[in-house]
Amino acid sequence: MDAADNPALPVTYAEVAAASGRLAGHAHRTPVMTSRTVDERTGARVHFKCENFQRMGAFKFRGAFNALAQLSVEARRRGVLAYSSGNHAQAVALAGRELGARVTIVMPQDAPKVKVEATRGYGAEVVLYDKHTTSREELSASIAAERGLAVIPPFDHPHVVAGQGTAAKELIEDAGALDYLFVPCGGGGLISGCALAAAALSPGCRVIGIEPAAGDDATRSFRSKTLQSCHNPDTIADGARTHSLGAVTFPLVLALVHDMSTVSDPELIAAMRYLWERMKIVVEPTGALGAAGLFERGFPVAGKRVGVVVSGGNVDIAALAPLLRA
Amino acid sequence: MDAADNPALPVTYAEVAAASGRLAGHAHRTPVMTSRTVDERTGARVHFKCENFQRMGAFKFRGAFNALAQLSVEARRRGVLAYSSGNHAQAVALAGRELGARVTIVMPQDAPKVKVEATRGYGAEVVLYDKHTTSREELSASIAAERGLAVIPPFDHPHVVAGQGTAAKELIEDAGALDYLFVPCGGGGLISGCALAAAALSPGCRVIGIEPAAGDDATRSFRSKTLQSCHNPDTIADGARTHSLGAVTFPLVLALVHDMSTVSDPELIAAMRYLWERMKIVVEPTGALGAAGLFERGFPVAGKRVGVVVSGGNVDIAALAPLLRA
Repeated sequence: MDAADNPALPVTYAEVAAASGRLAGHAHRTPVMTSRTVDERTGARVHFKCENFQRMGAFKFRGAFNALAQLSVEARRRGVLAYSSGNHAQAVALAGRELGARVTIVMPQDAPKVKVEATRGYGAEVVLYDKHTTSREELSASIAAERGLAVIPPFDHPHVVAGQGTAAKELIEDAGALDYLFVPCGGGGLISGCALAAAALSPGCRVIGIEPAAGDDATRSFRSKTLQSCHNPDTIADGARTHSLGAVTFPLVLALVHDMSTVSDPELIAAMRYLWERMKIVVEPTGALGAAGLFERGFPVAGKRVGVVVSGGNVDIAALAPLLRA
Repeated sequence: MDAADNPALPVTYAEVAAASGRLAGHAHRTPVMTSRTVDERTGARVHFKCENFQRMGAFKFRGAFNALAQLSVEARRRGVLAYSSGNHAQAVALAGRELGARVTIVMPQDAPKVKVEATRGYGAEVVLYDKHTTSREELSASIAAERGLAVIPPFDHPHVVAGQGTAAKELIEDAGALDYLFVPCGGGGLISGCALAAAALSPGCRVIGIEPAAGDDATRSFRSKTLQSCHNPDTIADGARTHSLGAVTFPLVLALVHDMSTVSDPELIAAMRYLWERMKIVVEPTGALGAAGLFERGFPVAGKRVGVVVSGGNVDIAALAPLLRA
């Protein structure tokens, strides 16, 4: 049986293909970039799927839009809720604006002001909470119950996974079949969806998940085949500070991902700088995970066709500047 | 008479079109990017011609390649020389490698090591000199005479101007007719060539040159119709620290450019950051001049179709980092 259409798995490739239709005209079909410098460095032919150019600056828009688009008109009218201080917040807010859904975002009081403003800028209501005294899960559940809102999880939902998979679908359609695909891994939404697309469209492709060394729960889960977790990992890759894979993403990762590996923060910063300086694209730390894994982990890519998902480009330059000094 | 084909001018559009043929398959046809955020900010429909994605990271490759391609095989075999510590050095070095020309680059001893290495990396011989004791013009002339080398000037040459003009030719071909075109101005090679292309392909287009306020010689020259100069202007826009327009570029600017204006370094840094943070593209300070002029100088662009040439993306992130802190 084709791994991409295994009904025992929580998501199939057919759902990725369907998401693709929903996203047409809403999400950008982001460019696939190549670089002679990267090809010389790696000996491979490398194709970067540039989700840093996606709307709101990250792949998250794909999953959020695909999830909201499948709510009934009535459910959208009541509204949706997400808790996030990162890209998922802006993704849900923007998708809500596009689809006429009221959006409530629950964020910690100390979230960067620029993110709060950006989320409000997309028309969402932001509810701030004190993370020392309040559980965001409980607060979110009580607001959602009170207002009849649908909660849109950041990764552990079939519609979110299917939406994220459209990134790899487009990459393979545009670049052709791949031997390797390197994908950042946090909660596993992106890599699960991308692995479904790779299994369906480029069956020989080895899908490699890369996560920060400080938050290596997915790598441990993958190796042990038992769900492992980590608590507030200390890494600059803020998009991959998730607690663990989820009930939807873990079985997909086990079934469809070929290997997992980690990179240190210095390796990640070096890869990010390399993409900035050589390819002239702004990539956020989490967004450079795949490239760092390609550059640093010695996978035998010479002569191979390689895909790398660059997952996002939302950086606060001022905050990042100290890390970029020589 | 069509301004783009005025035989009294030192370059005509026909030479830009011919350059385009020579560059095919060698220079990248760089992408034209748009941004909803920029359109909302300006009220215009803005098209960015992204020469930061050009080979060696800047438009300079176009002019250098077009000049070297017109040398005889014998002249290429003898070799070419350029003096530059910036993008022109790497442009000539790379064009020479592509076209089988020996390349000698004269650079000050204190040029950034990364630029010296990059230039050597393209196979050029680098001759270093002490700028306190040696005139680079005299040194270059004596090396060129001794070795029989053709000197490739950074801007003031018809073949260089014609090559640079292909950037605007591609922009207008891809984006359609424009009402405004904002172009960085240093020695005037880029804007002269782009103004020729605009005059030929989008006759109603107003071409606006933007230079750093500290080096406002071209603006003063434009207004007074007399060549003005400045000496080592103190600006972060290192690609626009030229002494003055030249014998080739000044008449082209007078004939074909509609207005000139300046931006301060803080305005320039703000525009550069904006392009980095919002459009996720790495732009060097000089490369952001056009965007800064669009954002800051109040040209009546609302409802108009606007082109902006983003001229390059070669930055030393570590050196720039202190300027990017809030």
